Order: sequence, then C-alpha cells, then structure tokens
Amino acid sequence: MDRAAFPAQVGIFEVGPRDGLQPEPAFIDTRKKIEYVDMLTGAGCKKIEVSSFVHPKWVPQMADAKEVFAGIKRREGVVYSALVPNLRGLELAAECGLDEVVTIVSTSESHNKKNLNAAPAETLKEIQKINAEARRRGIRVRSYIATVFGCPIEGGQDPAKALDIALALESFGAYEISLGDTTGMANPLSAYSVPKMIKEKLSRANLAVHYHQHFGLEFANNFASLQAGITVFDGAAGGLGGCPYAPGATGNCATEILSEMFRRMGIRTGIDSGKIQEAARYAKTLSSLIHENC
Amino acid sequence: MDRAAFPAQVGIFEVGPRDGLQPEPAFIDTRKKIEYVDMLTGAGCKKIEVSSFVHPKWVPQMADAKEVFAGIKRREGVVYSALVPNLRGLELAAECGLDEVVTIVSTSESHNKKNLNAAPAETLKEIQKINAEARRRGIRVRSYIATVFGCPIEGGQDPAKALDIALALESFGAYEISLGDTTGMANPLSAYSVPKMIKEKLSRANLAVHYHQHFGLEFANNFASLQAGITVFDGAAGGLGGCPYAPGATGNCATEILSEMFRRMGIRTGIDSGKIQEAARYAKTLSSLIHENC
Repeated sequence: MDRAAFPAQVGIFEVGPRDGLQPEPAFIDTRKKIEYVDMLTGAGCKKIEVSSFVHPKWVPQMADAKEVFAGIKRREGVVYSALVPNLRGLELAAECGLDEVVTIVSTSESHNKKNLNAAPAETLKEIQKINAEARRRGIRVRSYIATVFGCPIEGGQDPAKALDIALALESFGAYEISLGDTTGMANPLSAYSVPKMIKEKLSRANLAVHYHQHFGLEFANNFASLQAGITVFDGAAGGLGGCPYAPGATGNCATEILSEMFRRMGIRTGIDSGKIQEAARYAKTLSSLIHENC
Repeated sequence: MDRAAFPAQVGIFEVGPRDGLQPEPAFIDTRKKIEYVDMLTGAGCKKIEVSSFVHPKWVPQMADAKEVFAGIKRREGVVYSALVPNLRGLELAAECGLDEVVTIVSTSESHNKKNLNAAPAETLKEIQKINAEARRRGIRVRSYIATVFGCPIEGGQDPAKALDIALALESFGAYEISLGDTTGMANPLSAYSVPKMIKEKLSRANLAVHYHQHFGLEFANNFASLQAGITVFDGAAGGLGGCPYAPGATGNCATEILSEMFRRMGIRTGIDSGKIQEAARYAKTLSSLIHENC
C-alpha cells in the first residue's frame, strides 16, 4: 500500500441536506435548510444533494424543495441535485433548473417496499422512465442502490443483486451509481470486495460508495473502498441522517471526518477543514436524531 | 485484499482500567475498578492492563493498584498487567503476583518530559533496568512507544525514532512492543507504513498497535495496520482515556467497536459482543472525560 497507488484527488458527494435531514420528525425552517446548503457551498463541496421532489404526504420534511432551491446561492461549477422518485418529481426538478437528479432503489425487496411501497423491479421501471425523460431534458442521473451491504429486515444481501441492479441502472443511462450501506452493516472486507466486483463489470457508469455510521467503522469501510479503486464517497456534514423506514438506521458518514482522513493521507477533496466543521456544527443544531445515532 | 490474507484470529490488549481511567480527575472507588476488570475478564479479554505502580503523587488515580489486584477475580489463562515506571514499581508488581508488566517511553522529547519528567534516553535506561530485573524474576515486559504517529507538542515524528526505540526495547528483552498514537494523529497510510517498516526490522519482539480516537479514524488505522501484518491491537472498553499531559488527547480506541469490526470480517478475538458492550456501558459510567473526548 503506497501513497502513489491512491489518486491525488477524490470527490465527496454531500448528502446532508437531503439524506441527512429527511428523517427529521419536526419540520425544519426553510431558511435554515438554505443556510446549511450555503455553508456547504462555502466549504467547497462540489456536489450537494439539496432536497427531494417526493410527494409531501410521504416526506413532509422535503415539502419545501422548491423554496430551498429558489433560496440557495448557487456557485458556478457546483452541482445541486435532488432525489426524484418518479416523472412528476423530475418535472419539478427541471422547473427548479436542476441539471442533475438522483434516484434510489434497494437490493432488498422488503426494504424497497417499506421505502418506496414497490418491488425493486417496479422501482427500476420507474427509474428507467426517469432516465429516458432526463436524457431528453439534458439532466444527468445519479442512482443509489440501497441495502447493498445488508438489510435491517432481510439481513445479508447477495452482492449479485446489487450487480444486476447496477448493470440495469447503467443501461438506463445513470452517469454514476452509489452503493449504499443504508444501516451501517458493511465491514472492510465487503467494503472492498463488493465495489471492486461491481466496478469491474461496469463499462460506462462511475461507481461511488455511501456508508452510514457504525460507531466509526464507516471510515475503515471508506478506506477499504478507496483501495478497491473507488474515488467518489458520499458523506453528510455533521453525520446527519438515518432512515425513517429502516429500524436501527444510523447517520451518514460525517463529511468533516471523511475529508480529514483524506487530508491526512495527502489526498485532496477541495473541502476546507474549518468551514466544513462549521457546517457540521450548524447541521447538528438542526438534528434531533444525531445523539441517538452517533 | 482477500479474507484468506488475514489471520483467523487476532489479539486485543485491553487497556481500559489503566490507560482509560488514569486521566480521570476524581478518584474512582476501588470496588468500581475491580468490577470493571471483572467484567472485562467475563467478556473474554485475554490480556488486561489493570493499573499502574507509579508514585501516587504523580498519578493519584492509580494509588489503589495493590487493592485492585487483591480484589479482582483472576481467570486462568488471562494475563493481568500493570504499568511500571521504575524498579520500585516492578517490585510492587511482583508483590502482587504479576507475571507481566508494561513500560512506556515517547519518541517525542517534549512529551516524554511532560509525561515522565525525563528525556527519552534516560527513560530507556530505566526500562533497561526494569527488563533486567523482570527477567530475573520471571516477569514478562511489554513496552509502549508513545507519540509514534505525531506529538501534540512537537508535531510530526520521524518513524526512525520509533524504530530506534523499538530496537532498543527488543534488545532489553521486551516480548511485545506497542506503537502508540497517543493523541489520535495517525492516518491509514502511516498506520500501514510505520508498523510495517518496524515489524520488518524486529527479530524477536512481537509488534502491536495502540490507536487513540479521532472521531472514528482509529478503526481505519487499525484496519491499515492489520493489512501491514499486525495481529495485536490495543483497545479500551468504552473508549475511555486521554492523557493528562497531552493537550487534545482523546480516548482510546473502543474495544467493543474494534472487536465488532473483526467479528464482521470473520476474524476471531475471543471477545463476547454482548458482554464487552456491557463492560463498555459500565466503563462510561466511571468516566467524566468520555463526552469531551468522543
């Protein structure tokens, strides 16, 4: 293991404002969400998942997506994206001037049903439609695969399921696929072998990883994935997050610690240490879940 | 990186009762210390650093070392050890029936002066005497090298200093040397390269690693050291610890998470998941530093 074997720079995909805040039970003031996104922009984040265009009946926390996008200060070169579950969501995203959206589907049948009220195969059909329409509109699509490293309901997941889904997502046109460890069940061996196996089979789409917390093991997992050739890592400033439909769900990997790990290794992320810590401190003031989840 | 490349079993050296409790400002009841050690024994820990035979003027928290050793339930096959700074400490350890003691010296001149009021070279002379006398008494010596991965006062430390000290300690007769990241300054690259370089130069002594917390990076560091061929890892149940003489010192790597990382990787530690978590919960009730340090 040599410094020279690692890239000079990696990307961090910031998911705090969406994946981090979504499970919060009490509605967070729109101005505070805007403040959080602006602090992330100020800290040097290059890709920020800002909100979700999902029906407010399902995720009331994200009901102000349009207002948040109207309020944030967009910086040239920074990508602001949103989760869309269907064509209606994509339409709303387009109305807000987004040039990137994200989709999600689980490897676990049970988790996908809880999360999206559909079988994974049905969700994939919807994602295929989203991709087709997004391409027509010139919008890029990033795709999450959830529960890749284990499901809190079903337990261990065969990596072949994630591979099949990844190949489908690539064929639909996703430019990047992110493997989600939705409830922090990965370990350094699976965090190495699963991304490596899938990366070798993809021909066009880039592969990213998305670890949730397990008391710090998420950093060992990210490091293992780096060794597997992964160069894009998802994080949430302040380690916010969880999943309202996944029992035992924990926060996302904390961006401020992840970027510190890379900094210490001499790998650039473009993120300012001091400013991301400020954003993390602010994010924690918005969260009621952080203390249970850490 | 293949499962087969890793050992089937690793050792965890539990340092909670000594390194974890030592910095606590208020004296902890002797019965509680005994309870903590007994819970660790019950959880399957094979090596436990119980206390320190240091003058109570310097470390009042460890003034009851003799009473703790008299009170704990010793299990056959478990090693109970204590830190000894000098021959007087070794004598007291021998009176308590110990068959293992630990010594400590820092790579950093400034840290060693703060910690032991001596230059590293003077401390090494004392350690040499301890080893000679320990050999005469049939007591094994384990040796820590502190500030290997960085010093909070001096900053970066040349790994050559740790190597020189390790070779000296080996020549004195230490059966095991543990590389200490006293204030959590390591990263996965140094946690791989430094142990690997030193391990290759040692001919008899085993090499262990001793990481302190940096918000979870300690697990990435332990994983990197595992890849470097290290098979003994220090931890403190509950992540207790810090250093009263090191500004910014953080707790030890939490044994309950470290053992969980290995469990998930299919590597045995002999530690019972449920029981070490109980010990960790109990340990946290003894600590006033845990909230600041985590």
